[in-house]
Amino acid sequence: MTGNVRVALIGCGRIAQVAHLPALEKAEGVDLVAVSDPSADVARAVARRYGVPSAYTDQGEVFADPSVEAVIVAAPDRFHHAIAAAALAAGKHVLVEKPLASTLEEAEALADLVDRTGLVLQVGAMKRHDEGVQYARRFVVERVGEVRSFNAWYRIGDLRPGIEATLFPHVAADPAARQVEAGFKADRRRYLLATHGAHVFDTVRFLLGDVTSVIARHREDGKDQTWQVLLTTPSGAVGTVGIAVDVPGVPSEGIEVFGSTGTVRVDTHFPFYRRASTVHAYADGVTSVPELTDGDAYERQAEAFARSIREGGPPVPDVHDGVRAIRLIEATAAAVESGAEVEL
Amino acid sequence: MTGNVRVALIGCGRIAQVAHLPALEKAEGVDLVAVSDPSADVARAVARRYGVPSAYTDQGEVFADPSVEAVIVAAPDRFHHAIAAAALAAGKHVLVEKPLASTLEEAEALADLVDRTGLVLQVGAMKRHDEGVQYARRFVVERVGEVRSFNAWYRIGDLRPGIEATLFPHVAADPAARQVEAGFKADRRRYLLATHGAHVFDTVRFLLGDVTSVIARHREDGKDQTWQVLLTTPSGAVGTVGIAVDVPGVPSEGIEVFGSTGTVRVDTHFPFYRRASTVHAYADGVTSVPELTDGDAYERQAEAFARSIREGGPPVPDVHDGVRAIRLIEATAAAVESGAEVEL
Amino acid sequence: MTGNVRVALIGCGRIAQVAHLPALEKAEGVDLVAVSDPSADVARAVARRYGVPSAYTDQGEVFADPSVEAVIVAAPDRFHHAIAAAALAAGKHVLVEKPLASTLEEAEALADLVDRTGLVLQVGAMKRHDEGVQYARRFVVERVGEVRSFNAWYRIGDLRPGIEATLFPHVAADPAARQVEAGFKADRRRYLLATHGAHVFDTVRFLLGDVTSVIARHREDGKDQTWQVLLTTPSGAVGTVGIAVDVPGVPSEGIEVFGSTGTVRVDTHFPFYRRASTVHAYADGVTSVPELTDGDAYERQAEAFARSIREGGPPVPDVHDGVRAIRLIEATAAAVESGAEVEL
Amino acid sequence: MTGNVRVALIGCGRIAQVAHLPALEKAEGVDLVAVSDPSADVARAVARRYGVPSAYTDQGEVFADPSVEAVIVAAPDRFHHAIAAAALAAGKHVLVEKPLASTLEEAEALADLVDRTGLVLQVGAMKRHDEGVQYARRFVVERVGEVRSFNAWYRIGDLRPGIEATLFPHVAADPAARQVEAGFKADRRRYLLATHGAHVFDTVRFLLGDVTSVIARHREDGKDQTWQVLLTTPSGAVGTVGIAVDVPGVPSEGIEVFGSTGTVRVDTHFPFYRRASTVHAYADGVTSVPELTDGDAYERQAEAFARSIREGGPPVPDVHDGVRAIRLIEATAAAVESGAEVEL
Repeated sequence: MTGNVRVALIGCGRIAQVAHLPALEKAEGVDLVAVSDPSADVARAVARRYGVPSAYTDQGEVFADPSVEAVIVAAPDRFHHAIAAAALAAGKHVLVEKPLASTLEEAEALADLVDRTGLVLQVGAMKRHDEGVQYARRFVVERVGEVRSFNAWYRIGDLRPGIEATLFPHVAADPAARQVEAGFKADRRRYLLATHGAHVFDTVRFLLGDVTSVIARHREDGKDQTWQVLLTTPSGAVGTVGIAVDVPGVPSEGIEVFGSTGTVRVDTHFPFYRRASTVHAYADGVTSVPELTDGDAYERQAEAFARSIREGGPPVPDVHDGVRAIRLIEATAAAVESGAEVEL
Repeated sequence: MTGNVRVALIGCGRIAQVAHLPALEKAEGVDLVAVSDPSADVARAVARRYGVPSAYTDQGEVFADPSVEAVIVAAPDRFHHAIAAAALAAGKHVLVEKPLASTLEEAEALADLVDRTGLVLQVGAMKRHDEGVQYARRFVVERVGEVRSFNAWYRIGDLRPGIEATLFPHVAADPAARQVEAGFKADRRRYLLATHGAHVFDTVRFLLGDVTSVIARHREDGKDQTWQVLLTTPSGAVGTVGIAVDVPGVPSEGIEVFGSTGTVRVDTHFPFYRRASTVHAYADGVTSVPELTDGDAYERQAEAFARSIREGGPPVPDVHDGVRAIRLIEATAAAVESGAEVEL
Repeated sequence: MTGNVRVALIGCGRIAQVAHLPALEKAEGVDLVAVSDPSADVARAVARRYGVPSAYTDQGEVFADPSVEAVIVAAPDRFHHAIAAAALAAGKHVLVEKPLASTLEEAEALADLVDRTGLVLQVGAMKRHDEGVQYARRFVVERVGEVRSFNAWYRIGDLRPGIEATLFPHVAADPAARQVEAGFKADRRRYLLATHGAHVFDTVRFLLGDVTSVIARHREDGKDQTWQVLLTTPSGAVGTVGIAVDVPGVPSEGIEVFGSTGTVRVDTHFPFYRRASTVHAYADGVTSVPELTDGDAYERQAEAFARSIREGGPPVPDVHDGVRAIRLIEATAAAVESGAEVEL
Repeated sequence: MTGNVRVALIGCGRIAQVAHLPALEKAEGVDLVAVSDPSADVARAVARRYGVPSAYTDQGEVFADPSVEAVIVAAPDRFHHAIAAAALAAGKHVLVEKPLASTLEEAEALADLVDRTGLVLQVGAMKRHDEGVQYARRFVVERVGEVRSFNAWYRIGDLRPGIEATLFPHVAADPAARQVEAGFKADRRRYLLATHGAHVFDTVRFLLGDVTSVIARHREDGKDQTWQVLLTTPSGAVGTVGIAVDVPGVPSEGIEVFGSTGTVRVDTHFPFYRRASTVHAYADGVTSVPELTDGDAYERQAEAFARSIREGGPPVPDVHDGVRAIRLIEATAAAVESGAEVEL
C-alpha cells in the first residue's frame, strides 16, 4: 500500500487526548480514520474535535473496518493484551501503549502472535523517539567507549499535578469510567513500578543493551513509593535505577552513562512540554549540547510507526523489547520480595 | 452580572488558535460564546473544535449579539483600533492583543473612549500574567531596594520555527488571508519593533515603572534586525534593551534588575511551552528560585480580564499602559532616526 | 589555656603544602609553631615559606616540644595510627587526616585512647566544614522531613590532573620519598576505596546518620575502578553511593537527599577552588541557593579544631565518626567480595 | 639569549602577592630574580617566601641590575608610565599592569618609546590569556560569521570581599603605604572606570576589534557606581557594556556576541578561582562547552611574555592595545560628561 497509514485509536481517555490525538493530527504519514471508546460521549467529542470520520463504542467495529490498517491501543493496561491480540488477528498493525501487557505471559503471547502474523507491533515507549535520547544513543555508540557505569532515575515530583493542569488540554471524560479505572490502580506498588519502570528500564536497554541481574530495595510511605535498584549488564557495567513517586518538587527523569572515553547525561523533560531531552555529551575536552527542536515524542513515535509499516524496518521498540521491559519490572519486584539478586 | 463572563473572540488566525482558544477553553470565569473571522471556513473550524455556539464572519454580528459581554481582539494589528473602538461603542469590554494600536494617535483615542465609557479595556501584554514575572515584580518592590540599573532582551532565535512547528497545534487557515497579511508585515523594521517592543517595553515598565528617555542604535542585515537601546528612568536608573530578530540558536528573552539591596533575573520561555518564567532572585545571601507551575500566561490573562469585569479592579495592563508602550516604540524609532536622545 | 592554639604539622608532603599550610597561615585561633618531615629539605622549605619557627625531621621532637599543644597528622595513611597514638600519649590534641587509620582495629584502638586521655581527636574529613554541606545538613534537619532516599557520588574525572596543575602551588618534594609512597598505593583498589570512600561515606553519615547495611558491586578496568553501593539506614531510607576513578571529563562529587517535605542537592567542588559546595534546597515551592563565600574547608576545619580545644565542644567529626567511616569502607569491600548484603 | 627569561617584579603589593608571585613561581620560561618594593619589610617577606635572590627597595637598583632582562610593573597605576619608561630606557622588556598609564598622553609616550627601542612591552590585561576567552576568540573568527551585536558586563558583587578573604593568601603589607594608596583611589568614579574598564574594553577589542563611538550614562550612589555604554564598531555591530560597582551578590563578568551564523557567551570567573572562563559557543545546532583546565591567566600571561621575548612574536596585548583601552575609558568618561556620542 502507499499513501498515509490509516490508523484507528482504541481508548480515548486521558493519555489519548493529551498525547496521541494532538500528535496524530500533525504526524506525517498518518491519517486518523477512526476512534473507539466505551463512552459514546467521549468518542464523539474527540472525533468532533479532531475531525475523525468514525467514532465507535465497540472496538470490534474497528477490527471489522476494512479502511483501518493499524490501531493504536491506548486503553488501560489490563486490556493491552486482549486488544492487541484481537487487532493482530484481524490483520491490523499495532502500536500498543507501554507496558506491553499486564504480565510476562501475556507479553510473550503477543510476541508469538507477531512472529506468526508478520505484522508490525510497536510498543509505546515513546522516549526512544525523543530526539535527545536518540542523540545520546548515537553518542554512546560512537564516542563513550566501553560503558562502565550508569545511573538512571525517574522521579515524579509533587508539583506534577499543577504542571499537568497547565499543559493538558481540556479532557472529555466519563466520570463512571474514571472511577472504575482508579480501582484498578489501587495496588499502587505494582501499578507504579509497571507504569514508570516501563519507561526507565526501556531507556536503559535502549542506550546500554540488556541487563543481566538486579538487586532492589523498596520503601513505602503512605501513597509514596521508592525503589533503588542495582543492575549489571553482560559487559559488566554496574548501574543504578531509582524510581520515586512522589518526591517534593519538580519531576526529574534522566540517565547518565560513564564510559572509557566519554560520558553522556540525558535530562528528560515532562513529555507535554514537547521538548527533546537536554543532553550533555562529553568527549575529548568538549561538552556538546545539541539544541533540538523536534520535541513531540508522541508525534515522532507515530511517524516512526507509519514508516515501519510502509517501509518495512523493525518497529522501535519492538515486541521483544516490550517483553524484556516487563521482565525487568517483574525481576525488580521479585528482587524486592526476596532481598536477593535476581538473574535475568 | 454574575457567573462566567461571556466572551467573543474576534480574529481566529494563528495567535487565536495557538494561544487564545486553548486558554479560553480552560480559563476560569470565562465562557467563549462566539467567534468571528472573515473566513467562514476558519470560523466554523475553530467553533467546531472548541464547541463554540456562534461562528460569525462579520464582527458587527458580535457587537450586535446581546449575549456577548466582552470581546478579545486577535485580528491583525492595523485593525486593533477600529475593532476595539466599535466594541466599546457597543458596550462590550475589550481585551485587545498588543500592540494596543498601530499609531500613538489611535492608541490615545482608545484611551479617551475607555475613560468615557468606563468599560474595561485590557491590553494583551500577557507577560504581566506570567507567574514568574509577577514574582519578580513583588521581589523588586519588596527586596531589591532602589533600582540602579537593568538589562532587558528579546531575541528571536533562528531555531524558533522548528520549536513552533512542534508546539503549535494544527492551525486552520485561509491561504488568501495569509498572503494579504504577509504584505502588511513587509515593513519588517516597523513591524518587528512594534510587535516585539510591545512585550519588552511593557515588561520594563511593569517591573520598573516609567521611562524618561531613550537613545537607540539599529542595524539591518537582510531580513535580520537589531536594536540596542539605552534608557533612563525618573529615579535615574540606567538600563539597556536589546531586540534582535533573528539570532542563531534558541530564542532568549528576559530582564535583570540591579538594586541597592537585591538583584533579580527573569528568563522568560517561549510562551507555548506554557512555563512560567524562571526567576533567580537574590537578596541577603540567598538566591531564591520559585518553582512555578501555573504557566499558561494566556489563560491567566483571560482569567484576570474576567475578574476585572466582575470584581471591578483595574485591568492589567490597562489602556494607558498600552499607550505608553507605543510611545516607547515610537520614541525608539525616532531615536534611531535622529541618533539623539529622545525624551518621553 | 588561652590564646591561639599552638599547632605542629607532622608530614609536609603534598596535602600538607596544598591544603594545610595555606589554611593554617590564615586560620583564626591557630599558630603553626613547628613542622616535621623526614626530609630535612622539605621541612626547611615549608618552614621558610610559612615563617614557621621550628622544622623537625623526627616527629619525636614534636611530641617532646612543650610549646606544641596539638598536632595535625598529614603523613601517609599507614602512619596515622602510630603518630596519632604517640601524640595522644604525649598529651597533644590531634587532627588526623582521613582515613583515621589503615584498619578498623587501629581505628578502634585510637578511639580507646581518646576515651582514656580526654584529649581532642578530630578526623580530617574536612567536608563537614564545607559551608555548603553544613547548610545542607541544617536543611535536612529542618525542612526535608523524613528522609526516604538519597544518592551520593564521588567521581574523579580524568581532567583532574590538569586542574591540580593549575590550582596547586609549587610543591617542595623529596623524589625518593615520592617513589616509596607510590609503592604503598599500588593496591589501587584498596587505596582508592579507602581514600575516596572516607569522604563520601562520612558525608552520607553527616547528613543522614548511620548506615545499616550495604550491597556493593565493583568493576576494574586497568587503573580505573568503579563501585556502586546500595545502602539502607535505620529509618529505612534507601540510597546509593557511586565511586568512580577515573571517568572522562571533570570531577564530580555530591549528594542528593529526598525527604517527605523537601529535597536538597549538594554539588561539592574540587576543594582547591576554595568554593563552598553549591546547594539547591527545595521546600514549599521555592529552591534556595545560598551564595556562600567562606570556601576554604581546610581553614574552617583548623578553626573548628582550635575551638574544640579552647571551648570544649566535641570535634567534628570525632574519632567514633572516623571509626564508622572505616567500618563502611570495610563493609563495602566485604560486600564486593561476597556479593551479599553486609550488615553493620 | 636563551634559557628562562630573568624577570624582576616592581611593586610587591596586593596584586603582586595575590596574582603575580604565585604565577611566576610556576610559569614556564621565567625566572624571578629580583623583587622591589618601597617597603623593605614587604620586599624581604616576598623574597623569602618565593625564594627570590634579590630584594630591592629602590627600583633604580632593578634597572641597574644586569641580570634582569625584563620587569613586571605591579606598582600603583600612577607610577606605570614612569617605571615602564625608565625600564625601557634601561633596555628591559616590560609587562605593565593594566591600565597602561594614567592618561592617554602618558600611554602614547610609552608607545613611542616602544617603537624607538624595539623592546617588548606587554599590557597586563591578562584576560587575553584566559583559555576560555581565547577559545571564544577563535570561535568568533571561525564560526560566528559577521558580528551584529554584543553585550559585555563587569559587575563587582558585594560578596566579593568574602570571596577575596577566602582565596587570597596572607598578604604582607606596609600599613602606611596602604593608607597613602587609598587616598589615590579617592576619586572612585575615575579610578573604578579606569581599573575595571581596562579589562572589559580590552576584552571587547580582543574579541571584536575596534570601537568607533560610545554613548554613556552614569549613576552614582554613595560609593556605588554604574555605567551603561552603547558602542558601535567599524562594521556596524551595536553593543553594550555595563560596569557596576557594587551590585548585591556574586561578581559577574562576561560577554555575549551574536553573529550571522553563530553566537558565543563567555562567563569569566573571579580570577583567583584560577578557572578558565566558561564558554557556550553555538553554531549549526550544537552548543559547545569546552572543559578547560589551564586556568591561571596570570601564569599564562607571564609565559606568553617570556615567549614574546625569546621567540619574537608580538606581545598580547601590545602597547597600542593599551593605548586604545585608555582611549575607550576616556571616551566613556567624556560621553558621560557631555551626554553626546563620542567618536574615537
